[in-house]
Amino acid sequence: MVTLNRQITLAARPTGMPKESDFRMIESPLPSPGEGEVLVRSLYLSVDPYMRGRMNEARGYADPVALGAVMVGAAVGVVEESRSPAVVKGDFAVGMLGWQDYAALPAKDLRKVNPAPGPLTTALGILGMPGLTAYFGLLDICGPKAGETVVVSGAAGAVGSLVGQIAKIQGCRAIGIAGGQSKCDYITGELGFDGAFDYKATADYDAKLKQLCPNGVDVYFDNVGGAISDAVFRLMNTGARVAVCGQISQYNLEKPETGPRWLTQILMRQAKVEGFLVMQFAAKYAEGLRRMAAWLKEGKLKYREDIAAGLENAPAAFIGMLQGRNTGKQLVKTGEAA
Amino acid sequence: MVTLNRQITLAARPTGMPKESDFRMIESPLPSPGEGEVLVRSLYLSVDPYMRGRMNEARGYADPVALGAVMVGAAVGVVEESRSPAVVKGDFAVGMLGWQDYAALPAKDLRKVNPAPGPLTTALGILGMPGLTAYFGLLDICGPKAGETVVVSGAAGAVGSLVGQIAKIQGCRAIGIAGGQSKCDYITGELGFDGAFDYKATADYDAKLKQLCPNGVDVYFDNVGGAISDAVFRLMNTGARVAVCGQISQYNLEKPETGPRWLTQILMRQAKVEGFLVMQFAAKYAEGLRRMAAWLKEGKLKYREDIAAGLENAPAAFIGMLQGRNTGKQLVKTGEAA
Repeated sequence: MVTLNRQITLAARPTGMPKESDFRMIESPLPSPGEGEVLVRSLYLSVDPYMRGRMNEARGYADPVALGAVMVGAAVGVVEESRSPAVVKGDFAVGMLGWQDYAALPAKDLRKVNPAPGPLTTALGILGMPGLTAYFGLLDICGPKAGETVVVSGAAGAVGSLVGQIAKIQGCRAIGIAGGQSKCDYITGELGFDGAFDYKATADYDAKLKQLCPNGVDVYFDNVGGAISDAVFRLMNTGARVAVCGQISQYNLEKPETGPRWLTQILMRQAKVEGFLVMQFAAKYAEGLRRMAAWLKEGKLKYREDIAAGLENAPAAFIGMLQGRNTGKQLVKTGEAA
Repeated sequence: MVTLNRQITLAARPTGMPKESDFRMIESPLPSPGEGEVLVRSLYLSVDPYMRGRMNEARGYADPVALGAVMVGAAVGVVEESRSPAVVKGDFAVGMLGWQDYAALPAKDLRKVNPAPGPLTTALGILGMPGLTAYFGLLDICGPKAGETVVVSGAAGAVGSLVGQIAKIQGCRAIGIAGGQSKCDYITGELGFDGAFDYKATADYDAKLKQLCPNGVDVYFDNVGGAISDAVFRLMNTGARVAVCGQISQYNLEKPETGPRWLTQILMRQAKVEGFLVMQFAAKYAEGLRRMAAWLKEGKLKYREDIAAGLENAPAAFIGMLQGRNTGKQLVKTGEAA
């Protein structure tokens, strides 16, 4: 019987791009669930861009992870022991288990996962936080209308790949920006985007974007920021809406960048730029999941997963994701279901 | 009888701050109103920041003024001759008469002015475009709630001075940023703002703003842009709303400025930044004017006017306004009512 819990902790606050030495694996005693709590064994861990912000000392939109504490993160797992009437041993559930093999946490902080609509991993992707982020960020923040041009950056990632597909379902023209030809081929081929450009192989973003968006840009869903977003901003149409979902190009800078001032352009175009977190839409998650599951079942949404093997490889998988090595949702397989 | 019409035309496209030599006064034959048109004699001309954009060759949110053409602008005047049943000789009206003594234009493009709620000049200020800009920009774009902190830049100008007062009517804390101690004294004294700072005499905008806004900034109504807006952005609260109304600090730059990148901050704060033009709210102008007139009558809104004498002095008044020499609405008196 297992009595030790492997945990990956934050060993050092990174400067710039995180290194594997910023993490440390330790072994702790297996946690015991208290009254109303559940012991969950992790099966799949999600690594996501937002975690980079939690490694910094400064408060972002949530408290930093303390030095020596277990890294935060959502995972899907199986219930090993329950002290809550809401959950029984053997149930699958998703929650903020952290980067570890086992977690004890209140049953109310878990969402049970029914494996029927898709594999368990979808609870961390298309039918989880990334799916809801794409759904509400595009539909509620940007309100895309049929015939409009929607541009998404980070377009082959967990969120971006869904944004373009939802835009297509809405009758929009979907253009993706991604790093590498294979990602561009994936989104225009398998996912049905109308166009894509590989920013790593493009010298003149403005010219390329103008060619792909002859009618300008009505909606921009931004996951990356920096010079890519500058080019999109220059092409905004009157009444454009920008959802700021992520700024992955900026998270690992040692010094903040400067760039063009955009307020005059926002004024000239009567544009709206809005930052959002998926948690703002918590009251409507059920609606979002229902519609995403239906589209998935109808074959209107597709996804890919990039699955690293073993909790010990979570730091490398996380760093690879920050560097754009993944296509689709980056996961780490931490255990076997049975 | 007058047979010549004095007109101020655009003689040259300015580089940086406009000079008086960029304008030229000419004399043309008096225009004749066609069927459905009206001949109006100008009494007061409004000079506004947006006119700077119209002097450029590049299209902003409207077409540029052609070289040699009469400068655009709203004015209030008296009807001298009418070929429309909607208007009679002697009526007062406001419309886009341009920088000239006389204009012939369709009656439907004029709004009749009833001098009863205030002097004729209010049709160009508090009960005109600047008043509506403040009203809809603050209330509709920003949705300020009682107890929130509202910061306005260009706070002693035609629009900014009203924004702070409307914020106070809504139960908000109103902080103004203006250039010069006398403007700051005016807005905190006569207009009842809760605080103000003179950016010309302040070295550390951040420290000063933090002192004036101990609870951060919930709403920012921006007329100026540049380093002043940077300081406000750094102090944004979660859920902050920014209305971009003007960017006067940027209009006369010979080269576009760079500045801090703001998208990460907008994301962290789940903030919304929206550019707007008052014309977006045309369907609700009557409501806005009714409420502004009521507040004016109740003594809840105050205003100042800075009136230059003579059409020939319009260029100097316009340049002075761009340099911030005015307090309140800058007008040019172009004729006598009787």
